[in-house]
Parts: sequence; structure tokens; C-alpha cells
Amino acid sequence: MTTTLSLNKLAQITTSELRGNADLLITGISSLDAATKGEISFAIGRKYLSQLDACNASAVILTADLATNYKGNVLINKSPYLAYAQVVAAFYPEQAVVASIHPSSVIDSSASIANDAYIGANVVIGKNVVIAKAVVIEAGSIINDNCSIGENTHLHAKVTLYENTQIGQNTRIHSGAVIGSDGFGYAPDQSKWYKIKQIGNVIIGNQVEIGANTTIDRAALGSTHIADGVKLDNLIQIGHNVRIGEHTAIAACVAIAGSATIGKRCQIGGASAIAGHLSIADDVIITGMSMVIRSIKSAGVYSSGMPVNENRKWRKNIIRFTQLDKMAQKIRQLEKRIKR
Amino acid sequence: MTTTLSLNKLAQITTSELRGNADLLITGISSLDAATKGEISFAIGRKYLSQLDACNASAVILTADLATNYKGNVLINKSPYLAYAQVVAAFYPEQAVVASIHPSSVIDSSASIANDAYIGANVVIGKNVVIAKAVVIEAGSIINDNCSIGENTHLHAKVTLYENTQIGQNTRIHSGAVIGSDGFGYAPDQSKWYKIKQIGNVIIGNQVEIGANTTIDRAALGSTHIADGVKLDNLIQIGHNVRIGEHTAIAACVAIAGSATIGKRCQIGGASAIAGHLSIADDVIITGMSMVIRSIKSAGVYSSGMPVNENRKWRKNIIRFTQLDKMAQKIRQLEKRIKR
Amino acid sequence: MTTTLSLNKLAQITTSELRGNADLLITGISSLDAATKGEISFAIGRKYLSQLDACNASAVILTADLATNYKGNVLINKSPYLAYAQVVAAFYPEQAVVASIHPSSVIDSSASIANDAYIGANVVIGKNVVIAKAVVIEAGSIINDNCSIGENTHLHAKVTLYENTQIGQNTRIHSGAVIGSDGFGYAPDQSKWYKIKQIGNVIIGNQVEIGANTTIDRAALGSTHIADGVKLDNLIQIGHNVRIGEHTAIAACVAIAGSATIGKRCQIGGASAIAGHLSIADDVIITGMSMVIRSIKSAGVYSSGMPVNENRKWRKNIIRFTQLDKMAQKIRQLEKRIKR
Repeated sequence: MTTTLSLNKLAQITTSELRGNADLLITGISSLDAATKGEISFAIGRKYLSQLDACNASAVILTADLATNYKGNVLINKSPYLAYAQVVAAFYPEQAVVASIHPSSVIDSSASIANDAYIGANVVIGKNVVIAKAVVIEAGSIINDNCSIGENTHLHAKVTLYENTQIGQNTRIHSGAVIGSDGFGYAPDQSKWYKIKQIGNVIIGNQVEIGANTTIDRAALGSTHIADGVKLDNLIQIGHNVRIGEHTAIAACVAIAGSATIGKRCQIGGASAIAGHLSIADDVIITGMSMVIRSIKSAGVYSSGMPVNENRKWRKNIIRFTQLDKMAQKIRQLEKRIKR
Repeated sequence: MTTTLSLNKLAQITTSELRGNADLLITGISSLDAATKGEISFAIGRKYLSQLDACNASAVILTADLATNYKGNVLINKSPYLAYAQVVAAFYPEQAVVASIHPSSVIDSSASIANDAYIGANVVIGKNVVIAKAVVIEAGSIINDNCSIGENTHLHAKVTLYENTQIGQNTRIHSGAVIGSDGFGYAPDQSKWYKIKQIGNVIIGNQVEIGANTTIDRAALGSTHIADGVKLDNLIQIGHNVRIGEHTAIAACVAIAGSATIGKRCQIGGASAIAGHLSIADDVIITGMSMVIRSIKSAGVYSSGMPVNENRKWRKNIIRFTQLDKMAQKIRQLEKRIKR
Repeated sequence: MTTTLSLNKLAQITTSELRGNADLLITGISSLDAATKGEISFAIGRKYLSQLDACNASAVILTADLATNYKGNVLINKSPYLAYAQVVAAFYPEQAVVASIHPSSVIDSSASIANDAYIGANVVIGKNVVIAKAVVIEAGSIINDNCSIGENTHLHAKVTLYENTQIGQNTRIHSGAVIGSDGFGYAPDQSKWYKIKQIGNVIIGNQVEIGANTTIDRAALGSTHIADGVKLDNLIQIGHNVRIGEHTAIAACVAIAGSATIGKRCQIGGASAIAGHLSIADDVIITGMSMVIRSIKSAGVYSSGMPVNENRKWRKNIIRFTQLDKMAQKIRQLEKRIKR
């Protein structure tokens, strides 16, 4: 990276108040402990104050509060974290798509591919697929029949789209993600399982991000919906007919069972599990490794899970847990006795 | 889909009692809220009664109980859910396999491939592989040396089979699944790990379904066994030397550690974890996000896990959890004191 | 396998004391229940003593303790498990890499590939990639620009390396693993998420093993580090900027959030979740399905999680759990009253 940007320019980009040398040329951005001369850095809380003193960066992004006693060049911003993201974007702009279709790709003649799309090596594209302008499909991805992919959407290497999947614009899907696999639907038939053919599809909105090896099942009937702005981390499972509302962010290894409806602007912590056929309201925050088996009807922070303890203490307490109902009954008896 | 089927025909297919217009032509099946005129729908419990009133379907599948007050065309069935699955299958019959071997596939000359198999683009097939009649292997799948795949089995795009994997008939494996990877076996050797070469394989039965990005490890010695009729959802981990009995169904994101033996007709809820070297009896139901660390010796429903609560309540209770053994001791002391 | 090795040779390989017929020819190794005449087996604890009596193996590996009353041919070893691993390695030596580059692979002209590397079918290799001696890259793997792979490292089928990933020597990566995908980093920007471009990379050491469909995210800034000798099972998620110390072993389905630092020689049980921005000391053992949300500062065994119980008991106790703080308060009140 050979870009350099003046501190003044970075103040403009991040809408920050500049204190110090406006003409200073900044060569890049690093964390407080790794930054070298010429670079800018940032601190997103009081706990970084100690690192700030030892930091070699030529400028830092700070809140007004943290900046009070800082002597160096500083960009003062309400949200140093957002400003940091904006600075990274300034130093590493998205590269223009170089239109090309690799000769090793296998593309059905009925597919419609915009002139300026990029189709990588060994990509396979099925019948009636529609690929819009500036789409990037990296090596080894497989797009089955009747899929559509909107403008500027980027599929990294080895993404799989089952048939009839619809993807919006400016969406990014990471390697190994599988979109549109069969939902897990079986009807009991004596002691066996009768497969319920999954005839729906998956619809994904704009500005969505889907992590590596995440799986999203097609609907049994109708569609599984991922709304605009949703961010899904790696190794997430989204069951059939799930609906996820706008700008909800879900961390890695979350399992969402079939027909769950998740609201808008929710944040779901990693390794949580959400049962099927329930609803979660807008603006719900669920902390990591939580278990949701009933609908959540109002915004707020919800938690479950048991943090680790020394093994020998955990063993004692977990045995007591199995006696908890008895303990409660004993307490009630004691209360009665004492009242008498 | 342009198939139409008479209500009478659907009654025959589903072994239902028909009440209403037997000659009515049905054009498809949808959920209660989405069904339009000409379609059939179904309700699988009292909670759908309200939707039933507003439903535009021309016929519905109901239990005798739910049908009592319903005025429209109805198929009366003990299991509307199974009947729905049968109707879907009638409207969307499996398409006959169109035999073909894509020219981009790479197939070792020693492999034996039935005449009527379908081998998609960029499929790679190793030495001595045997592919039976009517097998479908979709684009990008990789079948390593000495694997065998039984009749009518369907591998979706980008399935990986390690060497020596055996797959039965009428089995379906979804994209990204990896079958036969090394089990996680290491012997401690001073402060390092000495790899235990995994020389076994994986054997998968008939009518099995394996979800997207699920992983099944080869045995250390011998075989990892998935019996006939087993249904595995997405993102499941099956450790080496695990044995899963007939018709057991396992929901997404379950982890089963090495050498666990799971019985027949079990149902394991999503995001559960099962420790290694234990046994679970036949007909055991384990609810979602459960933790199994000892053998389960008799049929029944087993549960663990802590449902979410408001964060501030959870915080209080989880601190008390760490004091649980002390609380129990205090209760006992109080009981003793009061007795005196 | 047609190798045969004398019992004496196996005693040398495993540094065992031999009791019995030193010249006995051993044809292979199997578990106690499966071993047949001519094979060697092993027992790794008292619970296998009953199987030992019925075992048909011609020799067994035992501790001195277990060997006391055993009449047959025996290798006496402090660690029969390690000796078993050494015997397997003796019977199944790594095969020499047959240098070849499959004609269907797509390799950028700027890549540097050692003469004796193996590049399988449909492999894609980007710009400036460096592949060292005796590296094996199996079919369908994709190596993006500027990656480097050290000597003797083995990538199974369909591994994906994002750009700038560095892999050490003698490392093994299983199918479907994705190394270097974007970390999950977004800054809140009004009610939306502003993507923080992830400009770091992943650095993986020597003798590392990475399981099937495991994902390791690139750093936001700097590097995600997996040190020498680390063993990762299947379906693990490693967030951006995580650091994992030498010889730590992590079982399947573990989620480690961004910027967590895990010490050396730790063992983390399957399906555990570790929050971000915390540290775990060296030599920490975390049992399965545990939840770690604070730093662990000293070596030891740590646990959490709730083992299954019969569903009706669990239901009662879990309701009491939500009353735990009130129960503790009641106990205190009772104590006060009684004191009076």
C-alpha cells in the first residue's frame, strides 16, 4: 500500500475535529501496540489509555474525553471505532472489478451475465441464471439453475447457491457458504421419516454479508428471507422459512431453527441457539451462548448460559442444581415452621 | 409447475377421507397464509385454526377434530403433516436422472461408473471408485480413491468423500459435507501431540440424508457407522468411530464426540453436544442445546440448558449458581437448628 | 496392507519391554474387540480388562500394571496409547509425494511451485503464491494471491486460503477449511453497520492440524496466529486477531471470538465458546460445552454447562434457577430470624 493521506483529509473523511498538524502525511493505520511512525491509530475506551502513552503512531483518533490530556496529533470523534473503519476504507478502497470470464468456467448458454462481471476459474453457472453488473464470482463457486445475483455482489471462492436463490446488490458471501440447501423437514411415518420435499427458496437482500461455511436452508414452502443489511458471521445455520430483519447482526456458530422470525437491528451473540416457530422483537440483544426457546416480545438484553468455574466447584454446584426444586421446597417448609 | 391433481386423487395418495368436491382440480400446495384459490393447504394443530378461517385455499388437510366445524373441501387425515409431505411429493415428483458425464470432470480410468449415472462439471473421481445406477454427483464434488456409492444416491454440489468411504442407496448428501476426514486422535508425547494415523473409514447406509457442511470423521481403526434412515441436518460434527442407529434424526449444529454410540429412532435437538465413549439407548429424545456427558440407558425425553432471561436477572442468578453448594449447606444447617 | 513387523521390532519402535515371543510376526493393529490372530492390540485403562480376556490378538500393548496377570505376548509401556500411535505409524508409513501438477489445475504464471510438489485436479493458485518442497494440494483447493505454504504441508481436497495466508511446514488442513475469510467487524453507524475492511492475514505455524470445515478469519489489522503444534478439530470458528499458543488442542465445534488469546498446551473441549478480548493462561483445560467470558489466569481444569436430566425434572429445576437470587435472600432472612 503506497497511499498517503494528510491528517486534514482524514479529518474530513471521518468528520473529526483535528488538533495538531493538519498537513501531516499519514501512511497507514495500525493498532496502538503495532503502529509505527507515520501511521495513525485509535483507542476505543479508557482501558487503552496505557497503550496510548507508549504508542508510536503519528496521530490517533480519540473521543474528546480521551483526548483531553493527549499531547500529540489527534482526530477527535464521537465514535473512534467508526472513524477507524472509515480511515481503513480510505487507505484500502475497493478495487474496480476487472471484467473477465475465466476459460475454465462452465456456463450454461441460457445464463445472462453482465458484460462487466468477473467469473473466476472453475465456476459453474446453471440454466437461466442472471448475473448483474459488477458482480464478482470467485473460483470454484457453483450457481445452480434460476439463481439471480444483484449488482456489485461479491461471492468469494467456493460458494454454493442451490437453484432459485435470489441475492440482492452489494452483498458479500464468503467461501464455503451454502445457500438454499434442503430444510430439515420429515414427517414421521411409522418408525421412519418421510422426506418433505423442500420446494421453496432463499431470498437475500442488499448489503448483506454471509460468513464462511454458513448454511441457509431453502424454505419448505415459500421463502427463507434475509433482509437488507443483515450481517452473518461464519458457521451459522439458518433453518428453512426463517426470516431475519434488516440490519440484524449474528455472530459465529449460531443455530436458528426453522420458521423462527428475528426482528430488525437485533444482535445475537456467538454460539447461541434459537428454537423454531418463535419470534424475536426488534432491537433485541442476546448475549453469547444463549438458549432461546420462547418468543421475546420486547427490546432489551437477554442472556443465559453458565460461565466456567474451577472444575471441582462446578461439579458440586451442578449436582445441587439437580436438587434445586427440593431446595426451594425445603426453604418454604423452613419459612412455615418459623412462622409458627 | 403445471401439474394439477383432483382432490379425489390426493385423497387416494394420502389415504384420507374426502369431504367436499372430489372432482375439484388442485394446482399446488401452500401454507395457510400464502395459499391462493386452486391450491390445497394443511393445518397441523389447534393454533392454526385462526389462520384456517382466513385461508384462501380451495381445500385443506385436517384431522377429524379440526375438521368438525370446517365448511370447505377437506381431506381428513390422522397425520396432516405426513399427508402434506405426500401431496408435495405428488406435485413435485423426482425427475429422472439424465445420464451424462460432464466433459470437465476428471475421472480415473480405474473407476467404474454405471451407464445411467449423472456426473456434473468439475467432479473429480479417484481410483477404483464404484458408482452405481442412477447416482447423481453434482458439480465440484470430489470422490477419493476406493469409494463406493449405491444406487439412486444423490450428492449435491461440492461434497467431499475421503478414500474408502462407502455410501448406500437412495441417500442424499448436501453441499459442503465432508465424509471421511481424519478423526481427532493424538497421543500426548511429552508436551506435544503425536498424531494417531486414522486408518479406518466411514460407512453410510441407505435412505440417509446428510446436511450442508456436516462433517463425519473416518474411524481411527474400523468404521464410523451411519445406519439406514438416519437424517442429519447441517453443520453437524460426527467424531471417529461413532455409531448412529437406524432412523435417528439429528438437528443442526450438534457435536458428537468420538466413539459415542447413538441408538435407533432417537431425536437429538439442535446445538446439543454429546461426549465420547458413551451410549444412548434407542428411542431417546434429547431437546435442543443439551449436554450429554454420561450414557443414557432408557428411552425418554432428556433436557438440559438454560433458557434466556433478562440480562440483569440472569446476572444475579448466575452468581447465586456459583454459591449453590453453600446455599444447600446453609439450608441443612437451618433445618438442624430448627429441629433442636 | 501387507507389511509385517516382528514383535521385537515393535518393541523397539515403541520403546517397550517385551514379554513373550520376540520373533512373532505381527500383521496389523486393531481394537481389542476387532483384533484377529496375527494382529496386535492395546488397552488404555482398567475398563478394558474384560475385553482383554476375550481378545484374539496375538499380542497386546499394556501398562505394567495391566500386564501383571496377562499370559500372552505383551509390550509393556508407560503409555499404551502413544505406543499404539507409533505402531499405526509403523504399519502405515506416509507415502512419498509423487510430484505432479494436474493439467486441469489453474496456476498463475507468477506462482512459484517446488519441483516435487503435488497439485491435484482443479486446484486454483493465484499470483505470487509460493509452494515449498513436498507440498500436497489435493483436488479443488483454492490458494489465493500471495499465500505461502511450507515444506511437507498437506492440503486435502477443497481447502480455501484467502490472500496473504502463510502456512508453515508439516501442517495438515482438511477439506472444506476456510483460512483467511473476513473477520466479523462492523462499526455501528446510525442504525446500520459500517464494514471494517479486514486488512490483516492469517499465519499458521508448523505441525498444525486443522479439521474439516473449520474457519479461521484474517485479522482486522495485523495477523491471526496459530502457533506450532496446534491441533484444531472440525467445524471450529477462530475469530479475527485470535492467537493460539503452541500445542494447544481444540475439539470440534468450538467458537473463539475475536482477539482472544489462548495459551500454550491448553485443551479445549468440544462445543465450547470463548468470548473475545480475553486471555487464557498456559496449560488450561476446559471441559466440553463450557462458556468462557472472562480471562483465565492460572492453569487448571475449568468447567461449566449443565448435563441432561429427565425432561420433567429439568423443567422444575430450571424454573427454580430463575428464582435463585430470591431463594438466597430467603435463606439469609431465615438465618437472621433464627439468630434472633
